[in-house]
Amino acid sequence: MMTNLKPGPDVNRRITLAAHPNGLPVASDFHLVTEPVPRPGEGQVLLRTHFLSLDPYMRNLMDRIGPGYAPPVPLGGTMPGGTVSRVVDSRHPNYRPGDLVIANAGWQDYSVSDGNDLLAVADMARPSLALGALGMPGFTAHVGLLDIGQPKAGETVVVAAATGAVGAMVGQIAKLKGARVVGIAGGDYKCRQAVDDLGFDACVDRHAPLFGEQLAAACPAGVDVYFENVGGDVLSAVLPLLNSGARMPLCGFVAHYNDSAASSPGANQLPQFLAAILQKRVRVQGFIILDYYGERFDEFRREMGEWVNHGKVKAVEHVVHGLLNAPAALSDLLQGRHSGKVVVRLEA
Amino acid sequence: MMTNLKPGPDVNRRITLAAHPNGLPVASDFHLVTEPVPRPGEGQVLLRTHFLSLDPYMRNLMDRIGPGYAPPVPLGGTMPGGTVSRVVDSRHPNYRPGDLVIANAGWQDYSVSDGNDLLAVADMARPSLALGALGMPGFTAHVGLLDIGQPKAGETVVVAAATGAVGAMVGQIAKLKGARVVGIAGGDYKCRQAVDDLGFDACVDRHAPLFGEQLAAACPAGVDVYFENVGGDVLSAVLPLLNSGARMPLCGFVAHYNDSAASSPGANQLPQFLAAILQKRVRVQGFIILDYYGERFDEFRREMGEWVNHGKVKAVEHVVHGLLNAPAALSDLLQGRHSGKVVVRLEA
Repeated sequence: MMTNLKPGPDVNRRITLAAHPNGLPVASDFHLVTEPVPRPGEGQVLLRTHFLSLDPYMRNLMDRIGPGYAPPVPLGGTMPGGTVSRVVDSRHPNYRPGDLVIANAGWQDYSVSDGNDLLAVADMARPSLALGALGMPGFTAHVGLLDIGQPKAGETVVVAAATGAVGAMVGQIAKLKGARVVGIAGGDYKCRQAVDDLGFDACVDRHAPLFGEQLAAACPAGVDVYFENVGGDVLSAVLPLLNSGARMPLCGFVAHYNDSAASSPGANQLPQFLAAILQKRVRVQGFIILDYYGERFDEFRREMGEWVNHGKVKAVEHVVHGLLNAPAALSDLLQGRHSGKVVVRLEA
Repeated sequence: MMTNLKPGPDVNRRITLAAHPNGLPVASDFHLVTEPVPRPGEGQVLLRTHFLSLDPYMRNLMDRIGPGYAPPVPLGGTMPGGTVSRVVDSRHPNYRPGDLVIANAGWQDYSVSDGNDLLAVADMARPSLALGALGMPGFTAHVGLLDIGQPKAGETVVVAAATGAVGAMVGQIAKLKGARVVGIAGGDYKCRQAVDDLGFDACVDRHAPLFGEQLAAACPAGVDVYFENVGGDVLSAVLPLLNSGARMPLCGFVAHYNDSAASSPGANQLPQFLAAILQKRVRVQGFIILDYYGERFDEFRREMGEWVNHGKVKAVEHVVHGLLNAPAALSDLLQGRHSGKVVVRLEA
């Protein structure tokens, strides 16, 4: 990374895509650009980024060929991302300096918007929650679990990446709906966090030598809903436990994000997967949360807002300080090194 | 195969499982038993088999470990199968000699039933249709396409194994619902049959060197419903063509029936499959037709009966003559050597 201007109040720093990563992103895949802070045109606002959301989907957008649901980042393009931003200058009739908004400013200090992609939010004690429990990850959990997974009281819900931004929400919502909730996480620390802090009934360490057996033991009545967002060996362990009529909302599969596109390692697992889907009459439903904002976001915000305010859902966050730490934090995130929602707090 | 009694009116021949097949079933996996015709006890009927249905699922039941939705055939057990049978002796109040019934007599001349698994059928010009267009394969097509696939007029439906017992019905029903129907079949002869006889809009030979390109050309508006019952390379070719929100009813995958259980050949295709499901928001729904008889069979029989009677749906059959030809016919069926519903007509 290289810098041209010294940091200061007139300087915008932005991080761009320098190269398509080969597997995990590394420092040389990113480039730091410094430039004068842009000026808003007529009908535009100037935003200062306060919090930047880091999410697994960002890795997908760094490949030469994008994932299909969103355009890939071009080389030299600013890394994208949801932000909590504050209006610092406005030539837009609906926004005034000081307003707090959810924006798509990406990895930079300042951004300009015509207002169409902004969502005004009331000042909150923890504005970063608008990127986590009350934002896209929470919304993903809410739609995926309730609309697609449809757990009934007493059913068993298995949540992969149990302490991740989405998984932690899925498990807590499932508990509120009366389900037995079994998490899967990497390492003993996260597993204890899922049970002790988040209230899961059980959590199994996917690195344990007897992971499959332990998962089976934790699900004595089988699995009715598997909230799939990791793939790989975790999926293989869940498949034989699925009950007839199980539901599998599918919103991502981090285990494969860093595979090279041409080939994936190991034996062909597709036949066994299809066999399980057929024999257990499973419904697998892929969904992209962007599709649901129009019809479902208000309901989610109302319900989840109450749950968070009343302490029924805990919003776990991992806060990284400073824009320049975003690249390493994304790599850590993709390796499952953090619990909860990962946000970058930009320098004030 | 070995025979102990000479064939005759007092002798029942039945074909049993002699060994679990290694891949495709071969003659030595079967055993012929001859024995006296059984006598019905109080409350039972004696049935003479007229037609025996051959179906891909039979291969699954021949493995040591069954598919889960039905128990495997034990070594020495009679090969199972749906039949059109006639009552020849009755000690059951509801059945009289001469009645025609759908039964589960399996691969044998005579069988005894307590009536619980029998379905009385009116004498028909073609009673074997009760095993095909008006039986399980037609029912599988009707439920899978209409309840799960839910094609809208103008959408594109792709049907693998297009001239098979299920596929031929799926394509014809989809046409009646106003869809564009593209078949996939093995070889030019079957493809012409799908278009010329069954009325598909197009059909692509899966053995063609440019199969993937030809399939894409036949689906210029993408694929909205993929009636999946073969798996393997056909599935791989369909995946990139799926439209957002596509549906994939999954009722079988013949391509893998003969794989050994431990490993499947080739690279791991599961990651690409999951990626497509996610990015295209696909709904994959496995179903076992046995689950639907209670609630849906009458509606199916009424509607499909009308379509067949009025010539709107053609019932294509391949009739094999003689019980002793059943083993070879099953092997042929698993290799896709026949078109339409394969039935064995037993000696009168």
